[in-house]
Amino acid sequence: MMRKQRDLTTDRPHEIEPVSRRSLIAASGGLAGSLIAGQAFGESLADVPPREVGADLGARSERSKFVKIGRIPEAGPGKRNVDPSDAINSKVPLHKLFGSITPTDLHYERSHSGAPDLDPAKHRLLLHGMARKQLVFSVDDLQSMPSMSRAAFIECTGNGWENWHKADENLTVQNTHGLVSTNEWTGVPLKFLVDLVGKDKNSTWMLAEGGDAAGVARSIPLTDEILNEAFVAYGQNGEPLRPAHGFPMRLVMPGFEGNLNIKWLRRLKFGDQPWMTRWETARYTQLHADGKATQFQLRMDTNSVIASPSGTMTIKPGYQRITGLAWSGHGSITRVEVSTDGAKTWMNAQLNRPALPKAQVRFQMDWVWDGKPTNIVSRSTDDKGNVQPTRKSFIAAVGTNALFHYNAQQTWSIDKNGKVRNVLD
Amino acid sequence: MMRKQRDLTTDRPHEIEPVSRRSLIAASGGLAGSLIAGQAFGESLADVPPREVGADLGARSERSKFVKIGRIPEAGPGKRNVDPSDAINSKVPLHKLFGSITPTDLHYERSHSGAPDLDPAKHRLLLHGMARKQLVFSVDDLQSMPSMSRAAFIECTGNGWENWHKADENLTVQNTHGLVSTNEWTGVPLKFLVDLVGKDKNSTWMLAEGGDAAGVARSIPLTDEILNEAFVAYGQNGEPLRPAHGFPMRLVMPGFEGNLNIKWLRRLKFGDQPWMTRWETARYTQLHADGKATQFQLRMDTNSVIASPSGTMTIKPGYQRITGLAWSGHGSITRVEVSTDGAKTWMNAQLNRPALPKAQVRFQMDWVWDGKPTNIVSRSTDDKGNVQPTRKSFIAAVGTNALFHYNAQQTWSIDKNGKVRNVLD
Repeated sequence: MMRKQRDLTTDRPHEIEPVSRRSLIAASGGLAGSLIAGQAFGESLADVPPREVGADLGARSERSKFVKIGRIPEAGPGKRNVDPSDAINSKVPLHKLFGSITPTDLHYERSHSGAPDLDPAKHRLLLHGMARKQLVFSVDDLQSMPSMSRAAFIECTGNGWENWHKADENLTVQNTHGLVSTNEWTGVPLKFLVDLVGKDKNSTWMLAEGGDAAGVARSIPLTDEILNEAFVAYGQNGEPLRPAHGFPMRLVMPGFEGNLNIKWLRRLKFGDQPWMTRWETARYTQLHADGKATQFQLRMDTNSVIASPSGTMTIKPGYQRITGLAWSGHGSITRVEVSTDGAKTWMNAQLNRPALPKAQVRFQMDWVWDGKPTNIVSRSTDDKGNVQPTRKSFIAAVGTNALFHYNAQQTWSIDKNGKVRNVLD
Repeated sequence: MMRKQRDLTTDRPHEIEPVSRRSLIAASGGLAGSLIAGQAFGESLADVPPREVGADLGARSERSKFVKIGRIPEAGPGKRNVDPSDAINSKVPLHKLFGSITPTDLHYERSHSGAPDLDPAKHRLLLHGMARKQLVFSVDDLQSMPSMSRAAFIECTGNGWENWHKADENLTVQNTHGLVSTNEWTGVPLKFLVDLVGKDKNSTWMLAEGGDAAGVARSIPLTDEILNEAFVAYGQNGEPLRPAHGFPMRLVMPGFEGNLNIKWLRRLKFGDQPWMTRWETARYTQLHADGKATQFQLRMDTNSVIASPSGTMTIKPGYQRITGLAWSGHGSITRVEVSTDGAKTWMNAQLNRPALPKAQVRFQMDWVWDGKPTNIVSRSTDDKGNVQPTRKSFIAAVGTNALFHYNAQQTWSIDKNGKVRNVLD
């Protein structure tokens, strides 16, 4: 049943695998055969339900009453489905989504003192410190400046923490990987603001502080990459930011730890060294096997996960569509390989186009399951040559004292009954 | 005040205009000068409101209570803000949006008998007619097939009809151009389905029929372009289609009339000639000045509109950010020019990247208004060389009997008090 798939990682936008070849595969016992054998198609209009009268047109299009889709609140690793007042994050239902954009209201949420709904008429952003001027901007000021839009993933540095230490076979992909999302963000380039206040050239660090009660504040190194790519966003997926995602303004730091994308942004201070806030001493410091720690490990590494089939699903023998998401803080995903025999052999999955840098990209592959127990797993490669590590090599390198930046390959086991389970392999 | 802007229409993704040059402009009396002169910035943290405690994390992120944003229902040209039960369409607030993606719940809506909320467990899609097999597919069947995702604009063929005949100076850009939107759609390539049923090679037309009470049905020519680009979508912006947009499945026809993107799709029939449904005889036929009519004028032409400043807004002398959207059913937008002196001289606006084919693209340009009455206008050019026509040349070519495919340049006048008005120029 295994076959080599063509490498479709070309640069053409919206590349889809030529269908004629797929149809041949399908017609020869793959897709069409399985579908028709398994699902008793009808063949006439009598099999199609009658047409229906509809509801009035409104100011907004709500979801179908038949669509049940939502995030799940958590209070940390292993503390799932908690009371919302105890929650510190809320995870995306990756297995129920399509394409690469995360629906605005389902973008993952992580906060340290809830999500304030700030009054945009009163909100201000202060730029100060080592600069020629210090200035305070309103939301209207920002929206009158040159803007940019960019699809970018934001990922909690704790994404994947569920699988760091022990296997819970009842986890879904929402539990294991639900702290990453991709939206189209719109805002003002950081470089524009930096030039407006005239940052001192000796200032190599910036403090970004949020307007929530916790006052999350992080020191950010002003590398060329960050100066060229970071921006202060006021829009997501075409509309104003939602309160949970930083309304009325947040920092967006494509490719870097979620907690650096400071929400409810109230000030940017320029300096020549990090501020060593409690967010970079007590938290967000990576503890290694030997007891030493790494501070400012800021970039999110190359990652991928199969979203379907995934944990707690049940599949039937025959044709399966394997699909998932890949992303890298280093740049663009250039390849996702999938193994359906427990990492013994690998095939290139199809990547949906365009595969934008520092954004999630959808991958997919067709597969015919022979009904025998097996393990499925994906691994991604980015355009800087980084390859997603196995769990063994990841643990060997990082140890088990750490809590952040887990990007090991995710294995799903399938038993003889088609039940899919989370395993550590 | 007028100056030539650099042509930034390169192929690099996420191209933004180099900031250093802009900052120089700003510092030399443009942006920063106007802002600081006009808006009394604060200069210290005392000017920034205190931090706030937030709400619990939830299953969804709702909009801010401070954000008032919605569509407006209409009953046809000149029949605005009607009772929803009389509405035949509902228009997007283009002047309140950012970037290129339209928020899912604000995507424009046009229907002929309301929006049914069909049960996806019961819904079926029949493929029949001139083909080797006829097959009926469920939603699950479709979702197990190879998928593609693509950002595409969909535009009602009546978009712009408000300005065809007479000037109403009180129109907003939502009134004049609110029947176009861009979402990331996910679904199954039409070609895959066509090959699955084994379409007869003599079949050059396809009938697509919707499951609403009106049973909107259109004949679609099976050109190579359409066979390669059309798809049956079940997802929009990452989630299942919303009922107003065709849940559980619709046809997406990038670049072609909105009404061809059949919602609540229930069958595709293959034939060798058009069916001449009432949707292509009584409606959606273009009546010319000489009384003759064009049927199957299906492609949407190159278009653009300035969304800010736009009708009913009031601006102040000094720095202005001009921004809007451009799109073409022929392919990619390669250039948007803006005139701030009533079409006497033109400058290239900056195009946000990536400028995807058959998707809306954001353009922007900075401008310092000298306080004198003037007209502002945009015109787009696509990669097939089509240039958006002036209203005069458009009317000269098409006449005033028609109702569809209006794509003339939109002029906004600005009076000495900064009041912006819709004019026909």
